Amino acid sequence: MNTHVKTLTPDLLHKMDAYWRAANYLSVGQIYLYDNPLLREPLKQSHVKPTLLGHWGTTPGQNFIYVHLNRVIKKYDLDMIYISGPGHGGPALVGNTYLEGTYSEVYPHITQDEAGLKKLFTQFSFPGGIPSHVSPECPGSIHEGGELGYSLSHAFGAAFDNPDLIVACVVGDGEAETGPLATAWHSNKFLNPITDGAVLPILHLNGYKIANPTVLARITYEELDQLFRGYGWKPYFVEGDEPEEMHQLMAAALEDAIVEIRRIQRQARDTHDATRPRWPMIVLNSPKGWTGPKVIDGLPNEGTFRAHQVPLHPDAAHPDHLKQLENWLRSYRPKELFDERGGLIPELAELAPQGARRMGANPHANGGLLLRDLIMPDFRNFAVNVPSPGSVLAADTHVLGEFLREVIALNQEQRNFRIFGPDETLSNRLNAVFEVTNRQWNARTEAHDEFLAADGRVMEMLSEHQCQGWLEGYLLTGRHGLFNSYEAFIHIIDSMFNQHAKWLKVTSELPWRREIASLNYLLASHVWQQAHNGFTHQDPGFIDHVTNKKAAIVRVYLPPDANCLLSVWDHCLRSRHYVNVVIAGKYQAPQWLTMEAAIAHCTQGIGVWPWAGSDRGAEPDVVMACCGDVPTLETLAAVSLLRHHLPDLNIRVINVVDLMKLVQETEHPHGLSDHDFDALFTQDKPIIFAFHGYPSLVHQLTYRRTNHANLHVHGYKEEGTITTTFDMTVLNALDRFHLALDVIKRLPQLGERGAKLKQVIQDKLVAHKHYIDQHGQDMPEIRNWTWRNPQ
Amino acid sequence: MNTHVKTLTPDLLHKMDAYWRAANYLSVGQIYLYDNPLLREPLKQSHVKPTLLGHWGTTPGQNFIYVHLNRVIKKYDLDMIYISGPGHGGPALVGNTYLEGTYSEVYPHITQDEAGLKKLFTQFSFPGGIPSHVSPECPGSIHEGGELGYSLSHAFGAAFDNPDLIVACVVGDGEAETGPLATAWHSNKFLNPITDGAVLPILHLNGYKIANPTVLARITYEELDQLFRGYGWKPYFVEGDEPEEMHQLMAAALEDAIVEIRRIQRQARDTHDATRPRWPMIVLNSPKGWTGPKVIDGLPNEGTFRAHQVPLHPDAAHPDHLKQLENWLRSYRPKELFDERGGLIPELAELAPQGARRMGANPHANGGLLLRDLIMPDFRNFAVNVPSPGSVLAADTHVLGEFLREVIALNQEQRNFRIFGPDETLSNRLNAVFEVTNRQWNARTEAHDEFLAADGRVMEMLSEHQCQGWLEGYLLTGRHGLFNSYEAFIHIIDSMFNQHAKWLKVTSELPWRREIASLNYLLASHVWQQAHNGFTHQDPGFIDHVTNKKAAIVRVYLPPDANCLLSVWDHCLRSRHYVNVVIAGKYQAPQWLTMEAAIAHCTQGIGVWPWAGSDRGAEPDVVMACCGDVPTLETLAAVSLLRHHLPDLNIRVINVVDLMKLVQETEHPHGLSDHDFDALFTQDKPIIFAFHGYPSLVHQLTYRRTNHANLHVHGYKEEGTITTTFDMTVLNALDRFHLALDVIKRLPQLGERGAKLKQVIQDKLVAHKHYIDQHGQDMPEIRNWTWRNPQ
Repeated sequence: MNTHVKTLTPDLLHKMDAYWRAANYLSVGQIYLYDNPLLREPLKQSHVKPTLLGHWGTTPGQNFIYVHLNRVIKKYDLDMIYISGPGHGGPALVGNTYLEGTYSEVYPHITQDEAGLKKLFTQFSFPGGIPSHVSPECPGSIHEGGELGYSLSHAFGAAFDNPDLIVACVVGDGEAETGPLATAWHSNKFLNPITDGAVLPILHLNGYKIANPTVLARITYEELDQLFRGYGWKPYFVEGDEPEEMHQLMAAALEDAIVEIRRIQRQARDTHDATRPRWPMIVLNSPKGWTGPKVIDGLPNEGTFRAHQVPLHPDAAHPDHLKQLENWLRSYRPKELFDERGGLIPELAELAPQGARRMGANPHANGGLLLRDLIMPDFRNFAVNVPSPGSVLAADTHVLGEFLREVIALNQEQRNFRIFGPDETLSNRLNAVFEVTNRQWNARTEAHDEFLAADGRVMEMLSEHQCQGWLEGYLLTGRHGLFNSYEAFIHIIDSMFNQHAKWLKVTSELPWRREIASLNYLLASHVWQQAHNGFTHQDPGFIDHVTNKKAAIVRVYLPPDANCLLSVWDHCLRSRHYVNVVIAGKYQAPQWLTMEAAIAHCTQGIGVWPWAGSDRGAEPDVVMACCGDVPTLETLAAVSLLRHHLPDLNIRVINVVDLMKLVQETEHPHGLSDHDFDALFTQDKPIIFAFHGYPSLVHQLTYRRTNHANLHVHGYKEEGTITTTFDMTVLNALDRFHLALDVIKRLPQLGERGAKLKQVIQDKLVAHKHYIDQHGQDMPEIRNWTWRNPQ
Repeated sequence: MNTHVKTLTPDLLHKMDAYWRAANYLSVGQIYLYDNPLLREPLKQSHVKPTLLGHWGTTPGQNFIYVHLNRVIKKYDLDMIYISGPGHGGPALVGNTYLEGTYSEVYPHITQDEAGLKKLFTQFSFPGGIPSHVSPECPGSIHEGGELGYSLSHAFGAAFDNPDLIVACVVGDGEAETGPLATAWHSNKFLNPITDGAVLPILHLNGYKIANPTVLARITYEELDQLFRGYGWKPYFVEGDEPEEMHQLMAAALEDAIVEIRRIQRQARDTHDATRPRWPMIVLNSPKGWTGPKVIDGLPNEGTFRAHQVPLHPDAAHPDHLKQLENWLRSYRPKELFDERGGLIPELAELAPQGARRMGANPHANGGLLLRDLIMPDFRNFAVNVPSPGSVLAADTHVLGEFLREVIALNQEQRNFRIFGPDETLSNRLNAVFEVTNRQWNARTEAHDEFLAADGRVMEMLSEHQCQGWLEGYLLTGRHGLFNSYEAFIHIIDSMFNQHAKWLKVTSELPWRREIASLNYLLASHVWQQAHNGFTHQDPGFIDHVTNKKAAIVRVYLPPDANCLLSVWDHCLRSRHYVNVVIAGKYQAPQWLTMEAAIAHCTQGIGVWPWAGSDRGAEPDVVMACCGDVPTLETLAAVSLLRHHLPDLNIRVINVVDLMKLVQETEHPHGLSDHDFDALFTQDKPIIFAFHGYPSLVHQLTYRRTNHANLHVHGYKEEGTITTTFDMTVLNALDRFHLALDVIKRLPQLGERGAKLKQVIQDKLVAHKHYIDQHGQDMPEIRNWTWRNPQ
């Protein structure tokens, strides 16, 4: 039994209930009212919006939570933000940030009076207004209630490295059915009670989704309790529907939870013992559409799925709904809550925290306010020494790892940079980072573990959803990081990327929202490096997905070697408010450019490699373009083959680092003008383009270019499984031999010489097939190939 | 304490251990051996494969499980299949299906002798051979160990409507960290013990992922126990590393679990009481790389993450590894296991089940063998009566719901059709299905619930991963179904779609694998119908994602009205081995085609709508094409506007139902020839194409067409949020006015008349903007627009 049954004095309880009623009133007002916002006159049809859109069901419960959080923030001077997991709590958050004053500070035209109320109500779910879910327009939010499932991951991301922050995270019981949310409860094994803040999950057992009950609301109490204890939490249950009793129960539970959080933190910090504690959480079981109409048209509403959206529809078909709506609104007794001008009465207004302690005004929820630049090492210091193209081998991501090691080391004190990934830091060859940090891990350790510690800059859990969600929460609260993954499996978070890209687009249009650090992806273990894994691990389509989003937001880089990779990452880690996707190789491969050349090349994003081609500035016979590390290698091998056999063939080699260079300048800020594109790719010569991904993407990006009809793209065609990296290129016709054959095919003027070379190459393909079938590996001439300037 | 400590007689234990050793021997052989498969001579470097790829860590534990499952299958004559969740258990499944004889039946060249063994070993992770994970090539598998997280969802999908089947599902503890797997444990709330089969999860606490420990292996025993009880399971723990003791423990736990499953089923079936039972599950805690080398190069291997892939590397750099490998292989005492010819000795071979009871030969794992056609109603019976185009309104998916109701009714007895979706059956307007069925739900019910029952054809859980995983499991075991979702959020399963499409591609190349029913998506609540939800709910990019996969597999349909939707679905539900994506509207909208016309149109997939255009077969001035319900409406409104003002303008109207018609016939089986495409779209006239999705997709599909330079696509540009459906089209320039303006722009010959009409239209756009800002809804002329033949 709970021992704090009388946590609240009658006076405070009365006031808090009034504040809750005010928030509920504002919520119903947002959903329904076009005019008469304070009900100064009897409600008429013309006061009601012509189109009713919105979601009531989750709202009163969230209003209830908010007013109770306000109390503990004030009492304990807490630094707290609020994450609203349920999809459609918009009216609650908007209403509460309005009541506490932040909304009017951010949007001065929404004043604290009757005129402001009218605007507040009208804009909700209204064309040109604000969405019915918690959206970027809502101050205090870092979490959009669009697609469900990520609230708890965002909350932990916000808490990392913010030791004084408590993230109150309302988890909807619908959302709790999603996979990402179901595993996010395990985030407590990755939180350090000394150096990180706390997450206080509040599972809102609202009972229903759109039209169904929720799973967690329909298992036994015992199961629910066991489930959360099994996840490592200590649940406090608050259950009921009678407001007075519920206020006391909620106040007591929150009191317990906050005291427990502070005790855990103090103990860990005093004793320097980060042993995983059992953090508190709250289960709030309250009726869906609480305080709304009990019965509508003879069917129960409050406490059922029917309360999900708009309960009453005052219109010709429902003549009694208008009166019911008025009764409902008046049940909150607005006259007692708002003064003559329409402002919240002072004795209620003083319940809210002040200044930046207000959850709507907490700077963590507008992370750009807190963003500090990373202290960056000079990436040139990590350069691979490349005396001549192809003369040395290096593993690109291994080199990048050394750079990232220094980024970590330089920012250890700032504590504002982390690397996230399912289990890939070593697999993707970023080993060097473990010279200066560890994986943060707060479950049990054993003697032979490596690179695990309670405090570390690397976050690894085998859940791409968690990695993405944590990183998003970390970025949105003003820090920096990257997501390090297999290329194929990054599709797991396609939809999370969508939501984040949309967030960036909308917030970039809100002047009060400050820019945050870019979301950076490192996709190693890419489609051409799946010798271990085969067909299921081959999918280069994430960049296709990314390029559909707003050009102002997305950037895609495919550096051909380690020095280019370093240059690109230096740029990405300094950039703001983008999504940067970088694809890189992890195996030993020839290096092409000196650091100086790499910087120049990456700055341009695309360029001719004169040392590789034979065109010497003249109009070429053929353009051979490449984008991606393996396509670059195969193109250069094809070029050297062609130049060896056809020394007077005039080949121009173009390498693309920045994929968006291919697009027209009108379509993407990085796009080349048609003039520049034509100067590179010619207006009429064949282009053999070796591409990392699906060929159709290059066509999609270039279809309006002058010479598009002569563009022949080689890339991934969903062929091949377990085989060598080189054989994979053969099966997809991206290899040196197929590229060279395509050149011959496009240059009929080669005549007999072309036909002879074609035969030579076809013989090589046969020999390759024969050798690999016999030996299970590539011919020595493939394995040992190096670039030698054919001149 | 377990009471069955001596479940196995010493003789049986000895034989089972030998069988396990045989499976382990075959596994290590697959990873390493190129020759000398029975170690008849001392192991030499030349006997070892030149490139070593594979995953040992999970393999011995899975071999252990398999031999124990074989025992209970024989003892209880069980109908059981095996799902291998851990990514890389390939050698285990291949080895066991070889030992039981199925592998040689499916692949007769892999004989049960020394020569067969050599081939079995060589092909593994070898160019042209089989992958290191459980792949479609492996008999008995319906689950590819590529991307992790879906084993348990697949298992439940297989169990639905298979009351006599037990699906043994090995869940890796790495996989268990993924979101989809974490929520899949809740599937037990959706299983009916009377009409469905059973799932027996075996959580393999192997301890480590690639380079990290796993979360579930590092929480307390108490937490682990509570977690699974909280999920509603009864866990049996099997823990240790000493084989003899482990055999007894595992045999006892399996004995308990099988007896419990049978007891649950008998009781439910005898009493007709489907109340949710507490199903048994097993937690097997055994060392990673069990029975492998204990120490390699001074570092512990067995029982650590280092056992994940290939433990030993016999090569010049590791001179002692060859001997260690030989010792390891000989530790299984192959001489005692295989006879002179190389076959498994009879006293071990008899441990395996016989015929179709062998898990490798169970027909459920090759679902096409069991697939029965759906009994289909005549879809024409559900036709909307359309006296003339645009003369009636209907909600397309509502009409489809009536057809699906009959599909459900006709196949109630066959029990081989289900509808899956997060919570959308009502939201997407398929209400009619609830006239004949319910949502299957086996958690608690309450008085006011609607359409919930222990037995039902609709499966709703707020997890797209579960819906997709269940449906895949259902299809892979030879049944039919569809996934009903919001368009934007179907991206949640992008990567699952990838894996299934890859599965279909590979299995279509395996003659022994039979075709299964298509995976059908119904995407309603699409990008243009998000008036409630706004920007976060707008994403039409799933079809972009889908079109990257093999043309032989994927189909995309955008029926413009209800009769076309019916025709398309009749086709989809009859089709085999495809992924069909169908996008449809759910709101009342004008209907265009009679059923007869709809059938003709859908059969062609693309066609001129002569009643809408003014070209009367002559070469038009302009082509107006449309694809999707909203684009069709806007195009027709634009056409009627243009024809009203410019009666002599010659407009051809083309509607596209089957998106792949746009592609060349060489690229997709549905593609039009260039001749046919040119005949429709002309070779040189402007084409104004109103498209449902991102415009770039149409360009991607058509860039090689003759008239592509004149193709101007309007579609979604990531603009707009909360507003009316029509205003959304305005913000993205897909509306009638922008379409008409584009026609004027492309026809300079219209001269002064064009300029005048342009002004008229621009005034309308201004009026629209003004009206919607004032009223929050569209002008009456928009809301009430209907098609009237302009002639």
